[in-house]
Amino acid sequence: MFSERASQIIDFLKNLQSDICKGLEDADEKSKFRSDLWEREEGGGGLSRIIEDGNIFEKGGVNFSAVDGNIPGFLAAEIKHLFPDLPESKKFLATGVSIVIHPESPLIPIIHMNIRYFETDSGAFWFGGGIDLTPIYVEEIPGKEFHQSLKTVCDKFDPEYYPKFKDWADEYFYIKHRKETRGIGGIFFDKLIPDDKHSFENIFEFWKNVGETFLPTYLNQINKHKNESYTDEQKTWQLIRRGRYVEFNLVYDKGTKFGLETNGRIESILMSLPKFASWQYDFKTTENSKEEETLRNLKIKRSWAS
Amino acid sequence: MFSERASQIIDFLKNLQSDICKGLEDADEKSKFRSDLWEREEGGGGLSRIIEDGNIFEKGGVNFSAVDGNIPGFLAAEIKHLFPDLPESKKFLATGVSIVIHPESPLIPIIHMNIRYFETDSGAFWFGGGIDLTPIYVEEIPGKEFHQSLKTVCDKFDPEYYPKFKDWADEYFYIKHRKETRGIGGIFFDKLIPDDKHSFENIFEFWKNVGETFLPTYLNQINKHKNESYTDEQKTWQLIRRGRYVEFNLVYDKGTKFGLETNGRIESILMSLPKFASWQYDFKTTENSKEEETLRNLKIKRSWAS
Repeated sequence: MFSERASQIIDFLKNLQSDICKGLEDADEKSKFRSDLWEREEGGGGLSRIIEDGNIFEKGGVNFSAVDGNIPGFLAAEIKHLFPDLPESKKFLATGVSIVIHPESPLIPIIHMNIRYFETDSGAFWFGGGIDLTPIYVEEIPGKEFHQSLKTVCDKFDPEYYPKFKDWADEYFYIKHRKETRGIGGIFFDKLIPDDKHSFENIFEFWKNVGETFLPTYLNQINKHKNESYTDEQKTWQLIRRGRYVEFNLVYDKGTKFGLETNGRIESILMSLPKFASWQYDFKTTENSKEEETLRNLKIKRSWAS
Repeated sequence: MFSERASQIIDFLKNLQSDICKGLEDADEKSKFRSDLWEREEGGGGLSRIIEDGNIFEKGGVNFSAVDGNIPGFLAAEIKHLFPDLPESKKFLATGVSIVIHPESPLIPIIHMNIRYFETDSGAFWFGGGIDLTPIYVEEIPGKEFHQSLKTVCDKFDPEYYPKFKDWADEYFYIKHRKETRGIGGIFFDKLIPDDKHSFENIFEFWKNVGETFLPTYLNQINKHKNESYTDEQKTWQLIRRGRYVEFNLVYDKGTKFGLETNGRIESILMSLPKFASWQYDFKTTENSKEEETLRNLKIKRSWAS
């Protein structure tokens, strides 16, 4: 029923999931990912892969899913708008890989990655995705390197991609009620479809590159601090920052909201939440501390890549 | 500008806040409530009182607020519907006391209480409130005593109150995506206005009784287990149940959502969140354990009072 394209994409995603899990296991040197295969009553299913209580990773998920079914009402209008010349679509396929990793050490950032592909039975399709970083302590060099690696991927395909997708991430990963960003952002894009400048192959290639840059980009972040010890104060700050992560995911994240409202697989949706998080009443950072510097960085939209 | 009624109500609420804080401090025997007086730019303000790191209370807030301003659009229609004969209202006053207490011991339940009063400049007004209990371990006798104490208060005023308000709480404190209730419920009511059966004085008296029953009702729960030690496994279970509490408050609670969307005072709104919470991937209770028994109780609507 689905396009040839779809099976090619699903193959890529499954291999990517497997490669990333292997790469993270090698880095962790202790814990292995366990596998949870699940089916969705309305159609399709997924493979959730979970790592817990490792040397480096306290809790992380690398999830693949490919679900299909009847097109929900709210999407029908959007499909019509994007593809006015196609006949009405009845069925959809949505597939992707979603990753959230919560390291044990407050010196190693939380990371999130998602690449997704959507198509309908009448031939409509698009790509979406993104990678963003949530350092517990925002630092100049790692922040620049992170953004630079994303810019390098984007620039190979279109010089307009990085500035546009970076802004999109800044806007998306914003905790409105705190007036702060979730982390230092990254890139976020949605509804990428072929146009005069970009063929299907070209967009698919870009999207694959985003997925493939996840592992080296994150390993670089991990390696910067993986052998360093940390203090109780730094752990406390990590738990508070994780509390903010929980706030973002439960209050604003569209994927989470969509999953909760449409009877999605709860354990896979909420694998994004950390093993431990904390809320203190009116927590204040001390003056001129690393914590204060981090907060200052989260209050502004700053440019990272050159 | 506001009614005589309002100042009488505000006096009651301030005294109630003070009495409850004193009663909880006496029980804790270690920590004291600190006070945070705040003003709201658009009108009014409040007094947040916070207890942390006590013998019994790990984190708790007893908040009074009285805010006023122009009536938001979505409320205007509702006021018109409830009070069709009154001229259009322009200004509102909303005042109340809100409490959430997270004890340190997993053997002592989390409790939530709120009583609130709303009025407009054209004479519309109503009362709302409720008390509900979230035991980490649901137990027969404490559960019955809790509900019985609420039923006793309700029955003094109307035999229909308890069954109606108990159902309302069961419906309200429901975590849809988990298909479980937040705790064992209690009572919940809103938009109580005088009618043929109940005068203003009668409703006001009922509402005061609800507020006044909080302290003895909760002290009774605390005293059942306050001198008992607990295991690491029980603490883990508490952190997981608190994770569910966070999910309810951030995803469903109307007061929290309203506060976040209307630029409310974040620290007072989110004081309801626990100091520590935990999420584990696909956590399973062991067979015939107390944890399993608790979960079973949260999956059904059960009757507690006789």
